[in-house]
Amino acid sequence: MSAVTTDLAAGHTGVPDEVLKARAYLLRVAEPPCREVVDLVRQYGPVEAADRIRHGVLSDPLSKKVQARRAHDRAEADLEAAHAVGARLLVPEDPEWPAWPFTAFGTRGALAKPELAPPVAVWVRGARSLSELCEPAVSIVGSRAATGYGTHAAAEFGSVLAAAGVGVISGAAFGIDAAAHRGALAVGGPTVAVLACGPDRAYPAAHESLLERIAASGAIVSEYPPGAVPARHRFLVRNRLLAAMGGGCVVVEAGARSGSQRTASDARTLGRPVMAVPGPVTSAMSVGCHELVRAGAELVGRPEHVLETVGRLGVDLAAAPARPRRPTDGLDPDAAVVHDALPTRAAWPVDRLTEESGLPAEIVRASLVDLEERGLAEYVHGLWQRPAPSPRR
Amino acid sequence: MSAVTTDLAAGHTGVPDEVLKARAYLLRVAEPPCREVVDLVRQYGPVEAADRIRHGVLSDPLSKKVQARRAHDRAEADLEAAHAVGARLLVPEDPEWPAWPFTAFGTRGALAKPELAPPVAVWVRGARSLSELCEPAVSIVGSRAATGYGTHAAAEFGSVLAAAGVGVISGAAFGIDAAAHRGALAVGGPTVAVLACGPDRAYPAAHESLLERIAASGAIVSEYPPGAVPARHRFLVRNRLLAAMGGGCVVVEAGARSGSQRTASDARTLGRPVMAVPGPVTSAMSVGCHELVRAGAELVGRPEHVLETVGRLGVDLAAAPARPRRPTDGLDPDAAVVHDALPTRAAWPVDRLTEESGLPAEIVRASLVDLEERGLAEYVHGLWQRPAPSPRR
Repeated sequence: MSAVTTDLAAGHTGVPDEVLKARAYLLRVAEPPCREVVDLVRQYGPVEAADRIRHGVLSDPLSKKVQARRAHDRAEADLEAAHAVGARLLVPEDPEWPAWPFTAFGTRGALAKPELAPPVAVWVRGARSLSELCEPAVSIVGSRAATGYGTHAAAEFGSVLAAAGVGVISGAAFGIDAAAHRGALAVGGPTVAVLACGPDRAYPAAHESLLERIAASGAIVSEYPPGAVPARHRFLVRNRLLAAMGGGCVVVEAGARSGSQRTASDARTLGRPVMAVPGPVTSAMSVGCHELVRAGAELVGRPEHVLETVGRLGVDLAAAPARPRRPTDGLDPDAAVVHDALPTRAAWPVDRLTEESGLPAEIVRASLVDLEERGLAEYVHGLWQRPAPSPRR
Repeated sequence: MSAVTTDLAAGHTGVPDEVLKARAYLLRVAEPPCREVVDLVRQYGPVEAADRIRHGVLSDPLSKKVQARRAHDRAEADLEAAHAVGARLLVPEDPEWPAWPFTAFGTRGALAKPELAPPVAVWVRGARSLSELCEPAVSIVGSRAATGYGTHAAAEFGSVLAAAGVGVISGAAFGIDAAAHRGALAVGGPTVAVLACGPDRAYPAAHESLLERIAASGAIVSEYPPGAVPARHRFLVRNRLLAAMGGGCVVVEAGARSGSQRTASDARTLGRPVMAVPGPVTSAMSVGCHELVRAGAELVGRPEHVLETVGRLGVDLAAAPARPRRPTDGLDPDAAVVHDALPTRAAWPVDRLTEESGLPAEIVRASLVDLEERGLAEYVHGLWQRPAPSPRR
């Protein structure tokens, strides 16, 4: 593997080899997320930080966390394995690094939580620049046991957002995740799958071809090297990347207690607006979404609502829902009262309309003229009536 | 009709006949709502207010509004017609008047809107006390063109709330309204239909037996006398009563532009919390509900959420002092008059205070003792004065 390449699939535009090797080592030496490794890198840079760990020049808490793995440097093997499966190690020193999305890890709330430490680097497989796929982007998450309604909504949101150029970030799981990715793929739009296993593994296995399609037109991202298996705790760890990479987090269907609510909670702490798609109150799969809205999440009824929140200000603003026009729209209140008083199957003189409407005769007369101009009243043989209804268009 | 009766169906416990006649006249002489009539009644009482209108002793705006009908006094005919159909005129002088719910018309927002003037009186048909049916109560409104999902939800909310003793207030229309009433009736719970026509009319006609059942176990309410037809503007006018009578307003299904949203807007102005039941984002009938939540309404996924909100209001309203406490709060009226008479920068003998207050000397003396105990009066060298104001805490 050359120290400097320009091919995106191979990766590492201009990043020195020693930095890549150092970060590959750091990514594996402690199970992510590890705040102490991040702090050490901030203080000494990746190369010296890796050296210090290798040589045991460490603070007490970090010393314990790296004790098991610090002597086994598998950085070169991981980089070679990645190269073999078309993956690359993406590091903060690379212009492709999604630096802006990951500023989320610098919020006061995130800094207070060790489990919301930023990644030291990520493994990426895919044809496109990750930073471009993420700016702008939205994470879409939800239940694996989604209903037909939920998968329909996720696909709709995924395709409309992707068609608008918004990256659809999800976890490639069954149900909502897969539907969101498929929606984005269907319109040839940007989509990113964040995995809890190596970027080369198909998990779940049934999504092998889906993952291939995501890699072909978007990206697959993971903190775990090629071959790593999806351990349970890694799904929770993975969720913070998913939440940070989206400028907002949309929950489509979620049960009363679900991983999606955990992702939503991470997103909130990371300063990301949390949105939830409502559903029937009779559906157990929408209970979690409704609870999120009651707790302050934004209800999104259409993908345009998401664009309004996350998209470029002033450009993607959702249009107001279409409102049916009525012939009586825009009438002043008196004219509306007179119109109500007009009989349907009869014709009346002004004084009868005056009594029925309770309005002074001069106002009734003025209103009748107004109504006549609008085609809402007819004057026939000295009496006023409603015109016969025209056939519906 | 006797001047004083005790039978609820006939109504008017202890209300003088002349008050009933005056309010029946006032209710019809201007199309409700009419702020000017309300103000006139507040100033002169109903009997003199009616006389002034009959004799044309009026301000300009009111003069125009009553011009068409003031010479046609149909009060007695209306009262007789009501009696004949088992309806009664309910007036603010009656203990059955829902005085507490109607305090909503006194909010700053309501006072600023002429269309949110309180009713001068209401026609009522039904077996139970309206004030009891309304305390506590919730209004449930929604689309006439409801879906099966919406009617299911409305019936569920109606029955759970009514079973908890919460009056279900609605408009007896097709769709959501009827489902909410039916839900309440199914558990033998309290329900009230507010109509835009006379309380004896079945509108819609297909709801004749539903309305009979509502009258039999709850109440039918209207500002329009027996026989009055439902004109379109009357539905909007009616909505404010519906909104005021519920301690909160629940919208179950509503299109993008709907009367329910108008009712919700009235409810908000009247200080009533607005709640909305979500539904599938694929349903046009839930768009209005979702827009309401996006605009700040509370999403309610279960009837218990409504109970939480309305119950909380009851508790808060009971506990929270409506006004700041003043040292003179709780004084009996005589003591308050004597307190007013006490000079700020001088000291007076009892006989001077007797003269200033216009009260007998023995009452002035007793009041001064009371005021002294409260620290509101000081006796110094045989003269009474106000204590020097104490520095603010």
